[in-house]
Parts: sequence; C-alpha cells; structure tokens
Amino acid sequence: MDNLQVIESVKAMQSHCERLRLAGKKISFVPTMGYFHEGHLSLMKEARRTADHVVVSIYVNPTQFGPKEDFSKYPRDFDRDAAMAKSVGVDVIFFPPNSEMYPEGYQTYVNVEKVTQNLCGLSRPGHFRGVTTVCCKLFNIVKPHSAVFGRKDYQQLAAIRRMVADLNMDLEIVGMPTFREPDGLAMSSRNVYLNKEERASALTLVGSLKMAQKLYAEGERNAVKIIRQAEKLITSAPFTAIDYIKICDAATLEDVLEIKGEAVMALAVKVGKTRLIDNSVLGDKLEA
Amino acid sequence: MDNLQVIESVKAMQSHCERLRLAGKKISFVPTMGYFHEGHLSLMKEARRTADHVVVSIYVNPTQFGPKEDFSKYPRDFDRDAAMAKSVGVDVIFFPPNSEMYPEGYQTYVNVEKVTQNLCGLSRPGHFRGVTTVCCKLFNIVKPHSAVFGRKDYQQLAAIRRMVADLNMDLEIVGMPTFREPDGLAMSSRNVYLNKEERASALTLVGSLKMAQKLYAEGERNAVKIIRQAEKLITSAPFTAIDYIKICDAATLEDVLEIKGEAVMALAVKVGKTRLIDNSVLGDKLEA
Repeated sequence: MDNLQVIESVKAMQSHCERLRLAGKKISFVPTMGYFHEGHLSLMKEARRTADHVVVSIYVNPTQFGPKEDFSKYPRDFDRDAAMAKSVGVDVIFFPPNSEMYPEGYQTYVNVEKVTQNLCGLSRPGHFRGVTTVCCKLFNIVKPHSAVFGRKDYQQLAAIRRMVADLNMDLEIVGMPTFREPDGLAMSSRNVYLNKEERASALTLVGSLKMAQKLYAEGERNAVKIIRQAEKLITSAPFTAIDYIKICDAATLEDVLEIKGEAVMALAVKVGKTRLIDNSVLGDKLEA
Repeated sequence: MDNLQVIESVKAMQSHCERLRLAGKKISFVPTMGYFHEGHLSLMKEARRTADHVVVSIYVNPTQFGPKEDFSKYPRDFDRDAAMAKSVGVDVIFFPPNSEMYPEGYQTYVNVEKVTQNLCGLSRPGHFRGVTTVCCKLFNIVKPHSAVFGRKDYQQLAAIRRMVADLNMDLEIVGMPTFREPDGLAMSSRNVYLNKEERASALTLVGSLKMAQKLYAEGERNAVKIIRQAEKLITSAPFTAIDYIKICDAATLEDVLEIKGEAVMALAVKVGKTRLIDNSVLGDKLEA
C-alpha cells in the first residue's frame, strides 16, 4: 500500500490489470475527474475495504461537457489528489492524456436511452452519452471486479448500472451515500467556485430535500405540492436559478405526479454561475 | 474436442469463460447467426488453430434487422449447425434466447458513427447499431482473446474493428477471406432463398468485381467509370435490382472518385427478393 503507482498509457494499465486478474487478485475501481474531497475518499476507502487492488482514474472527460460548460476551468490538482489517494491506500492512479482516450478518428459512443432522458439529460444534452462512453472505456481498460460511485450523481449511477446490465459487463457497481459538509451541503469539486454569499444560498438545495422528506413523512404524496414548496424555498435565496426540481420513479427516472412506489427527489440549481445538483430518495434518511 | 457443450444462459457462459481465463486458457470466438456454410467453418477452423478453447455463438439478433427485413424467416437449423460445429472441433455453442439478450427494460446501444454511414448504413438504418451492440454484449459474455469474422461483411468488420479500438476492448479481431462457391458466388446463409434463375443472375455480383479488378489492373483509376461498367453487367441479368455499387476508401469507407490509396469496391444487389452483398479490395486477388 506504500507505493502509489501512476499509469498514463491504456496498454500499460490494461496489461497491469490483466496480470493481476490472472494472479487471482480482486480489483476495485473508482473513476473520478479528480480534485478530490471527502466524498471521493469515501469511495476509495470502500474500494480498499473490499478488494486486493484499488485503481482510481483521474480524467476530466471532454465528451461529457457541453460546449458552453466548464471543461477548461474544471478544477485540477494532480499532486494534491495523488497525496490524498495515497493516504487511503490506493494502489494505482490511472491518469491518461486525451490523446490516449480519444485518438484521431475516434467515433464510438455508448448510449443508455431512457434513464438519461429526464433531469440532467434535459439540460445537458450529450452529457450522459459522454459519461457512459468513458466508463465503458475505463471498465475495459481497468478490468475491475467492482466499481464504486457516489449517489450524489443519482442519474449517472442509474445510467451506469443500466449500461453494465444491458451490455453484460461482468462487474459489480457499488453506490455509496452522498458525502456532505457539516452544514449539509453535498460535497462537490465545483463547490470551490462558490463565493461566501453563494455558499449560503447553496444550502437551500439540501434544505429543500429536508423539507420534502418532512412533507413525505407527514403523508404528502402529491409531487407537485412538494416541488412547489421546494421552489419557494430555493427562489427565496439570492443568486439562485432553478434548472429543475423533480420527483421521479427511483428506477426509471420518469416523473411521478402521485408518489406510490420508491421515488427520488432530484434538483439542479445554478447558484451564481455554478450549477449544483443534489437528490434524496423519499422515505430514506437524508444521507450525510 | 469430443464433447460439444451448448450453453444458453449469459451467466453460465460468463462464468465458464472466466474460469478458462483464470486457468490461463486462450479463448477464440466466432459470433454467427447460424445456418452454417463453409465460410462459417473456415472461421471456426481459424479459431481452433489459434486458441485453446473455441466458442461459437448462434444468435439471430433482432436489433440488426429492419422492420421490413427477413428476421422471422432467416434460415435456422440448430441440429445441423451443432453437428457442423462439432466436426471442426468447436468446444461450446452459446445459444441464448432473446429473453437473455434483451430482457425487459433493455435500452443501451453502441454506435460507431462514421464507418457505418455509407453503403449498407444508407440502405439499412440501424443495422450496424444492432451489430455493434450485440457484438459488444457477446464479447463481454464470452471474454475472448480473439474473435474471427469474415471479410464478406466488409463494413461490419470495419465497424467492429473501430468499436474494439475505440472502446479499448482487449481482444484481437481477425478478418478471414470471403468463402466462395466453385463458380465464385460468395457464400451466404441467404443463398438458400435463391431459385435456379436467380442463382444464375447472382453471379453478376462476383462478375462485376472481377471486371473491376481487371480494369484496375489495366490502370483505370476513375471510380465512376468502373462503377458504370459494373452497373451495366448487373442490370443485364434478369431479376436484379441494384441497391448500391460503390468504391470507397478501404479504411474510412468514404466514397472515392479517383482511386489513390487502398480502395474497396462494395455492392449490394437484390436478386428476386434476396439482398446479396459482396466486395473486393482493388488490387487484391479476388478471394476464393
């Protein structure tokens, strides 16, 4: 666990992992875009707990960003990330350049058609196609027995689970609880974009989820009524612009009007220039 | 080699192959839609020659047929196929039902965007998406070190090579020469649809490829002129209707007007109700 190895080439990563598999070792994998926070570390710790060998990828994947999104300014700090990964016992960081991942002539995409339609799929066209494509590539490169994702990106996790099942990928997908700051804000690499006033307004995301949980616990099953209350709370804070607040079937991610089965409330809100997301399965304890 | 095993479940196939890989065995795979002819057997023999364990899949894949195509009447004869596979030393036939391959809620597709545009991509929208999707699934199920395809389906082979490279699938794709009847007709499971007169007209496909090779050998580099001659030959035969005759860059499959680099002449012709394809790389000896 003492020697953290950094691998940049696809072929080297692939043969490293093939050797490990042939030796009967279990590989667990945490795909990330870097700029680690406690949420990322909790995924790595889970991987460490359950496998012989832990691989973390750091790759800000261009195909999941829209042309007007924050690809170029997405925060990056490899040395800090490497030290943090080392501190939780990661064995290998896979850190490929774009030329390795999308060489000239690249033209293949994996598309999960239905669970990616709603929510962020509406506001970020092509985003999930980029996510599932890069995860398919990374799974083929790292050949893991399990891969660990955070539940903060609920729809991403749903899309990846669907892809893995549909394409018969032989690995287990593990979803871990959303990691939150002491005041409840969901941890995100994008939180560094927030100034002090925006940071305060950003608390209305988790605040509206808490309120929804309370209404649900009191018996409210009308999704529109819950959403109205959440809207009221969020718009009352300065610098906020709601992208969406929705209550969806937890499996299909289709909108529900009357909550019957398992449902998730998911929201995306711009606070200043920073787009934040959060979610909570209604009836579950709010993750912290 | 004496015991041919038939496996119908995805999970059973996957754990069978994972066990073999862990034991250090090399797996070679031939994906087919069944109704074998000598062309299929040549692929299986190549697989047998190069690997410890040979898996053949027989699966008439619904997602690669258009709504008006011959999915339901595509010829099937499992017992005959199994006997033929056994005769060339195949170890396992993977023979899944549709419910295993596309269970309810299925929604994930792999799309190779560029090399699938031209040729059959124009006349069979969605066809290659079905082919690459099912091959991606089959590769994840069989976990082969190599997979063997015929070059008769030139564009299919190009799409699969592209998918494998782009998605970093760790296996080798082997392309084998087109197998032909003694009179030159490319072997195809669909040849059984042809009556005696149509069978005679079908020879104009290979005839036009031979003529193109002759013109090319004599120095002709104008693609349009070669195509015109081929059209003349094919339309002179009864029951023929040309879908396309094209000369394309052998790698990108884009049309070429003036032949400079490696080019392939590819054609699709309906003979009676049966759609046949054939191709030849210009300058190569016609495969037989």
